[in-house]
Amino acid sequence: MTISPEPGRVPNTMQAIHMHQYGGPLVVETMPVPALGPTDVLVQMSATPLNPSDLMFIKGRYGLNKPVPVVPGLEGSGTIVAVGRAWWLRPWLGRRVACGAPEDSDGTWAEYMRTSFHRCFFLADTVSNVQGATMIVNPLTAWALVEQVRKGNHRAAIQTAAASSLGQMINRLMQRFKLPLINIVRREEQVTMLKEQGAPYVLNSSAPDFERQLGELSHQIKATIALDAISGQMTGQLLNAMPHTSEVIVYGALSEQAAMAHPGDLIFKHKRVRGFWLSDWIEQQTILGIIQTGTRVQQMLHTDLKTTVQAGYPLAEIEQAISHYKQQMSGGKVLLLPGLHRTNAVAYQEQAMQ
Amino acid sequence: MTISPEPGRVPNTMQAIHMHQYGGPLVVETMPVPALGPTDVLVQMSATPLNPSDLMFIKGRYGLNKPVPVVPGLEGSGTIVAVGRAWWLRPWLGRRVACGAPEDSDGTWAEYMRTSFHRCFFLADTVSNVQGATMIVNPLTAWALVEQVRKGNHRAAIQTAAASSLGQMINRLMQRFKLPLINIVRREEQVTMLKEQGAPYVLNSSAPDFERQLGELSHQIKATIALDAISGQMTGQLLNAMPHTSEVIVYGALSEQAAMAHPGDLIFKHKRVRGFWLSDWIEQQTILGIIQTGTRVQQMLHTDLKTTVQAGYPLAEIEQAISHYKQQMSGGKVLLLPGLHRTNAVAYQEQAMQ
Repeated sequence: MTISPEPGRVPNTMQAIHMHQYGGPLVVETMPVPALGPTDVLVQMSATPLNPSDLMFIKGRYGLNKPVPVVPGLEGSGTIVAVGRAWWLRPWLGRRVACGAPEDSDGTWAEYMRTSFHRCFFLADTVSNVQGATMIVNPLTAWALVEQVRKGNHRAAIQTAAASSLGQMINRLMQRFKLPLINIVRREEQVTMLKEQGAPYVLNSSAPDFERQLGELSHQIKATIALDAISGQMTGQLLNAMPHTSEVIVYGALSEQAAMAHPGDLIFKHKRVRGFWLSDWIEQQTILGIIQTGTRVQQMLHTDLKTTVQAGYPLAEIEQAISHYKQQMSGGKVLLLPGLHRTNAVAYQEQAMQ
Repeated sequence: MTISPEPGRVPNTMQAIHMHQYGGPLVVETMPVPALGPTDVLVQMSATPLNPSDLMFIKGRYGLNKPVPVVPGLEGSGTIVAVGRAWWLRPWLGRRVACGAPEDSDGTWAEYMRTSFHRCFFLADTVSNVQGATMIVNPLTAWALVEQVRKGNHRAAIQTAAASSLGQMINRLMQRFKLPLINIVRREEQVTMLKEQGAPYVLNSSAPDFERQLGELSHQIKATIALDAISGQMTGQLLNAMPHTSEVIVYGALSEQAAMAHPGDLIFKHKRVRGFWLSDWIEQQTILGIIQTGTRVQQMLHTDLKTTVQAGYPLAEIEQAISHYKQQMSGGKVLLLPGLHRTNAVAYQEQAMQ
């Protein structure tokens, strides 16, 4: 699916999903198309997913609130249809990109989004806009988290929420790099699922001797880094179980609780807690590095980093899209397709879903 | 006070305070004088303090339990009266030292203690055994913590429990290095005391707008590191108040609670939590570095790093010593003087207290 650029044909107004207060209704409104700063680009959005973090965001529980009113949406794909005045951005016009929303202003659930050039990843011809729409929040995060393990020279790692889409990607990447990983899940059927995917170590945190098992296993395989999506008590359990001089990297807060750390682990055992945010990670990369990583990740979008898409909705049907996704969160991503009202809806959707 | 070495005259047995279970009674028992490993030294203990961390240790709440039965006591001073077979330890015989207890075996509340050479600091002639007895847990820790601020290139810092002996030392050192410090205390009279000591920034954590004040002040003076003796909620408050990319160093747990960290601070604001333990810090130093630091710290034992001593007791009066200390913890250190029964008690004590 390629949309030709139409320079000079960017309209003055657009449709966007607007939220006037956190937890309040999501309404489709006509808004001005945003103006661009020197190094900004304007992306005509083609597809943009509903992520769990988006659902947290619209409830005001994501941990990072933008000023309201605001357009939600963390990631998506589309075509660059206008660029800021920086001369070196001219060749970007017309390129298809996966793009992340700015940290402090309107996001991807709109016909157009203004964002900074460094939040855009050129899409290869082999990657459709639908596949590219979900490239950042899960695949790129999985890549960047596994990079923390590799660059830190850890022999093995632990991850929580291992049955999530992101967790499964991390599990596959760790296998690709031949790095042992202890997967932590909450239910027995998730243990089965991950073992079927070839994971050698899967622990159920609901098991009565979970902490003992985790302690023994992490010492045995020398798992000195944990990737934690849960926070709260889990962070403390991880830290406590791991060997001397280990670290927990908190990248999510599914428990919605403060991360705990026993002082004895911090003081006497030299263990540490830090966070990870993809946005910071991207800013630390060189331009060349980010292009290489973008290329590498796209090559794996059909395999290790594959995302399943279950449905697409026009912006106007945001409430239906959310209901659908909430009912079947493990069935694949639900996308918003901001172009869907402007074209033959059925044909567009078929094309988009290819 | 100089004790001459008496090689060959080390007895086979000694008196020591022995604890058979955490929280159990402390009894003076006759025990074998410990055997030495190749790089160990045997210190004939002259003076050894009761520190708050010792009181935690004997209750089993220090966070690091040694196998029982055990001799408590974290630090002290004395004379090296025997050395292991490493040839380069020979010249150490007869030297007066401040010494720390081994991590996993008997401590300083005894007539003799076996410890590793690298836990000993030669005492200068200007430093008495009484002054040297309290050189490690407070003065050296204060030095090492302020070093975290200096080597991390932080423009300013925060500390909790600022009215403690250690806190006051940190405050004086920070003033010496012209580094702004926000002192956090719990009571108004502590605010007054620290301001009288020239501290420009003192906050009372019991004040209703404490968090707002801390947030404004830490951003204003760019305090990007906090030295935290409290843990629990306080760690989360510190982390939350401080600027982007700050870190909290937990070195104590007066709250006896797990350190908290809001996931949003870890994830989106790049803040970190780690611990500090003097024992690790000492092991990371070079021999030359530790000698230089030991010399530097001793030069300040009469000024910035001065410890007040209020009383000395023989080992047999450990219970009285503890009662005395608990009743007047802010009145100065209470020491055990393991030689007190062997000599003219009054003369020894007068000499020791000089």
